[in-house]
Parts: sequence; C-alpha cells; structure tokens
Amino acid sequence: MATKASLSQRVLQGDVRAASRLMRNIDDGEPEATEALRELFPKTGRAYIIGITGSPGAGKSTLTDRLIAHLRKAGKTVGVIAVDPTSPFTGGAILGDRIRMQDHATDPGVFIRSLATRGHLGGLSRATGDCIRVMDAMGRDVIIVETVGVGQDEIDIAQMAHTTIVVTVPGMGDDIQAIKAGILEVADIFVVNKADLDGADRVVRELRMMLELRHAVKAPPMDHDAHHRMVRAKAEGKHVEEPAGPREWEPPILKVVAAKDQGVADLVKNIDEHRAFLEETGERKTKERTRAAAQFVALLRERLLKSALSRLERERGQLDEVAGRIAERQADPYALAEELASQLAE
Amino acid sequence: MATKASLSQRVLQGDVRAASRLMRNIDDGEPEATEALRELFPKTGRAYIIGITGSPGAGKSTLTDRLIAHLRKAGKTVGVIAVDPTSPFTGGAILGDRIRMQDHATDPGVFIRSLATRGHLGGLSRATGDCIRVMDAMGRDVIIVETVGVGQDEIDIAQMAHTTIVVTVPGMGDDIQAIKAGILEVADIFVVNKADLDGADRVVRELRMMLELRHAVKAPPMDHDAHHRMVRAKAEGKHVEEPAGPREWEPPILKVVAAKDQGVADLVKNIDEHRAFLEETGERKTKERTRAAAQFVALLRERLLKSALSRLERERGQLDEVAGRIAERQADPYALAEELASQLAE
Repeated sequence: MATKASLSQRVLQGDVRAASRLMRNIDDGEPEATEALRELFPKTGRAYIIGITGSPGAGKSTLTDRLIAHLRKAGKTVGVIAVDPTSPFTGGAILGDRIRMQDHATDPGVFIRSLATRGHLGGLSRATGDCIRVMDAMGRDVIIVETVGVGQDEIDIAQMAHTTIVVTVPGMGDDIQAIKAGILEVADIFVVNKADLDGADRVVRELRMMLELRHAVKAPPMDHDAHHRMVRAKAEGKHVEEPAGPREWEPPILKVVAAKDQGVADLVKNIDEHRAFLEETGERKTKERTRAAAQFVALLRERLLKSALSRLERERGQLDEVAGRIAERQADPYALAEELASQLAE
Repeated sequence: MATKASLSQRVLQGDVRAASRLMRNIDDGEPEATEALRELFPKTGRAYIIGITGSPGAGKSTLTDRLIAHLRKAGKTVGVIAVDPTSPFTGGAILGDRIRMQDHATDPGVFIRSLATRGHLGGLSRATGDCIRVMDAMGRDVIIVETVGVGQDEIDIAQMAHTTIVVTVPGMGDDIQAIKAGILEVADIFVVNKADLDGADRVVRELRMMLELRHAVKAPPMDHDAHHRMVRAKAEGKHVEEPAGPREWEPPILKVVAAKDQGVADLVKNIDEHRAFLEETGERKTKERTRAAAQFVALLRERLLKSALSRLERERGQLDEVAGRIAERQADPYALAEELASQLAE
C-alpha cells in the first residue's frame, strides 16, 4: 500500500516517470491503477482539454506538434494523449507518425503518451479519461487528446474535451466524409489542413453548408425534467435526440498549413476565444458535468460487470460453461441477466 | 401481453411485417422487444451467419447483392442486416447505396433491414445480435451481416458470423489499410473486389504477406484453465493475447468483380468449404459458445446498469445531479461505483 500511495503522490508532484507508470498500468487494466486514480481524483479538474480528431492522413500529428510549440511559447505546460488505432489481436500500435512529435522529446514541459485501442466496449474511452486525469493531476495546463475520427468510441472521446477541433483536408473521398459525420457535429473549431492544396475552398464551402443545415434542424431548449431524463437515457446507451439548445458558438472554419506553421497562431486565438465563451456562458461547467456523468457510468458499468460475473461464476460455473449452456439453448440468458440485476433493485 | 406473444409467434411463422416491427423496436430500444426476444430465443441457432466487412467504397453492397442471387439460386432463404454508420446526433443513415439491393425487393425469400449505429458503448453489437436472432427465428437459412470495417463495435459484429468475409479493393490508401488491421485478423475469406482494376495483384500479395506474418507469431495452444480465464477476461473488456491455437483454416484470397458477377460463384464455394471445415472440426460450436458469451455479457451489462442507475437515483438523486457533485469534486465516483457493485458481491 505504501508504494501505491507514493505513486499517486509522485504524480501530484509532476513526476513524469510515475505518471508514465500509472498510465501504463491503466492501459494494461491493472487493478492497482484504480486505487491511485482514486487518490488523484480530488486534485483533478484544472487542466484545459483540447480534442483533435480527423481522418488518417489529415495531418493531426503535425498540427498537434505545431500547437504544442505555440502553447509552450505562451508558457503553458502540455500533455498529449495520442489514441492509436490498434489491432485487438496483435496489441501493437500501427501508426508510427507520432515520431514527428519527438521534436519536443527533450522539453520537460511536454509529456506525450500513446494509448492503444485495445479495450472493448467503451474501455478505450474510460482509459483515455483516466489518462486525462493523470495528466491533469500532474499539473499540466493544457491536455491535447488526439484521435482518429472513426467509430463511437472516438466520438465519446471527442466529447471529453473542452474544445474539440475537427481536422479535414482537401481531396478526401466522399466516403471518408460520410464516416466522419458523427464527429463533425461535435466540432467547436474546424481546421482545413493542407489548405495550400487544391480543393481547400471547396472543403470550406461544404463545411459551411453543413453548419447551415445544422441550424435548420435546431430543436427548442429543454425543461429541467426533460434534461434529467436525457442524461439518464444517454447513460443507458439509448439514442437521444439532442436538442441544440441556446447554442451561440459558431464553429469557425480555419485554413491551416500545419507543416508550414501557417494559420496555427490563428487557431490558438480561436481556442482561447472558445475557452472564454465556455467560461462566460457557464457551458464549461455543463461540459464537465456531462463528462463526469459519462466517466462515472463507464466506471460503474465496469465494476458492476466484474461483480456480477464473479457472482455468476460462484453460483453457476465459469462464464465459458454458462455460455455453452446458452449456446445449446439449455439456459436462458435473459432470465440469468434479470436474476443478477435484480440483486441491485432491492 | 397477448399482442406481444402474438408478435413473436408471428415472427416464428416467418411473418416479415412482424419481424420488421420487432427489429424496429429493437433499434429504438423499446423494452417490449426484450420480452419478444426472450420468447424467440429457444427457437434460434439454426441460421448460418455470414459477415461482410470492409472499407467504405469497397463494394460490399454490390457483393452482398450478387451473393444473395447465388444463394437464392441454390434455394436458400436469405436475411440481410446492413449496419449503417450514422450520426449520433441526426439519427439518420448516411450511406444510401443499399438501394442497389432493391433488386431483391419483390423476392419474399430475401429480407433486408438496415440498422443504424445510434447506440452507445456496445449497444450496436447487441442490437445487431438481436436482429440476427429475429431473422434466425423467422427461419432464414443464411443471414448476411454487412458492416463498414471500422471501430471496435464493427470488429465485435464481425465476430458474430460463422464465416467472415473481408472485402478490400485496389487503390485504397495505406491509412485505410491501417485502420482495417483489426478487422483483417478476423477474416475467414478475403475478397479483393474490383479485381479488374490496376493494383489488384499487389493487394493479393500484401494480404498473403500479412497472413504469413500472422503464422510467424502464432502462440501455443492453451490449457483448459487458461481458456476459462481468457473468456472471463475478454468479457470484462480486458486486452487478451489471443492464441492462434490449432487453426488449420487458411483464409483464401479471392479476386472478384462483383459488378460483373465474376468470381462470386467461387466465393460461394469457399463459404461452403469454410462451413464444412467449421462443422468437421467442431469450431462451429466453439464460435457459437463465444458468441453466446458475448451476447450474454452485453445483455447483462445493460440490465445491470439500468438497475444500478435506478438504485442510485432512488438513493442519491438524479444522475445529472450526482454528476454535478462529482464534477465539483464533492462526491467520489470510485466510492459510489464500489458501493453499488458491492450489492452484487454478497
């Protein structure tokens, strides 16, 4: 126990090696990590979180690299969590272009960690949330979370950020754009990267059209009860028609050439403006509440399943054997799930 | 209650409208759907399930269309579940190319349904599993599940099939290939579609190289206890190094031009061979056991969360308010999750 306490204490002191170890434990699903996270939790909530998401090849790493340089120049310490698409079978990270960010490898004000997408069923977003909290507890001023914008997990991750930047580039096929549609709607700032390429203006035009369409379908704001019901329904994984509410922030569409550092200063300015907007309107608190709900539900889901499976295995045999009986139609999975869940209803 | 019972009875009689209604209820997360699924469950487990997955633009819909024609010629009834990537905000399906499959719209032996990816956190794979069971209970001989091969959800879905077909095409960028890596490893058959395009032989060569690499990292087979531990760990969402085991099936790599119906008969032949392999080696039973475990765990996870949230809201106030206290660091999410889960440990 003494060593565990000292791990979280060292993280609080900003110790990079302790933080690395804890994040590795989180990534590996080590149970000791929970204890340390629990100790860190009261000291978190200070960092500003920026999400950067977009298709592979959109130049997210280069953009992150330039953004780090600008933030460092402004005297801010930075943490970067790069979420890597990984094979669930080989366990290894595939995209190796993080290497570009190694420019900052010798700067103690920059802490970069990759997180592999090895988890199942929402595990990735939980692990990302945990790593954000570690960097937050370390005292990093700004945390950048970089993801490839595909899949529900990645949308969940994008929603953890205070400011979400969606990066597009000219010349991507329409199919790619289609996949990204879910991500586009969580954007606070659009970056059209590689804007010196042909077609950049077309992308800007398309994004603008899309934003106008979104305006057209805005729902009226919700009352208090409806809001509670929505938060609960979302936690249960139901589809919820999200009302746009009194949203006044107009996502800017910025042309950037990250490789030449063009437009990055303007991006930083827009991030600051969005941050000011969140503070002034109270939306930052709302966002943090939503994030807290999502993180709590993910934690709860994991702990519940663990306890329920232990109970099942104690009473009915190993999961694999129970599954065998279900597959043979000798056991009723609905009745079993009901029975286990009913312990909670009492 | 009488109407609900009759809905599942009508599904068992092969009633297409009843099945459509039930699947719509599943997609919408209606609680009545669970009751009907429960009634259908003992009558399921007969259909043969084929998964078709691959990048957008790989021609999956056209391939599915041709495959349907061949299966119909062989006298088999077919169900198709097309999993559509959807915005979680607008709720509408984006890819409209299902329309091509309308060739079969007037054939009562073909039943096609789209499933939107609106759920959160594994909800999509549960809904897909439920829809498979509805079509299975209807008496469809073959069920084709078509997904865009991105994200963990889609990998989970691919693993529901008896035979998983991964569709690639020449001329996709390397980034796309990288994303698909997780999917590639669940393939039983590779199809290089649009094989009349330049670069088809290169794709075949790359796939062959990848398969050889996979051979090189094969782990030794597991003992009984290790197997149980693995199933349990996977259910909890932990990363598990999956041993390749005594796998004798060599995934064939087939060149197909679906639009011209070239190579599709050969694909059907290879599906039949894989099916025979699964039956002879007992792997079909293993697959069904794995699928049963995954479906049960998904069901359990959902029921547990529902019960736990109800208990939480009864005792501590609405989720949104609890989240507010967590966000202010006045409540400890770890302690709350622990407390709720401990009800199950007794």
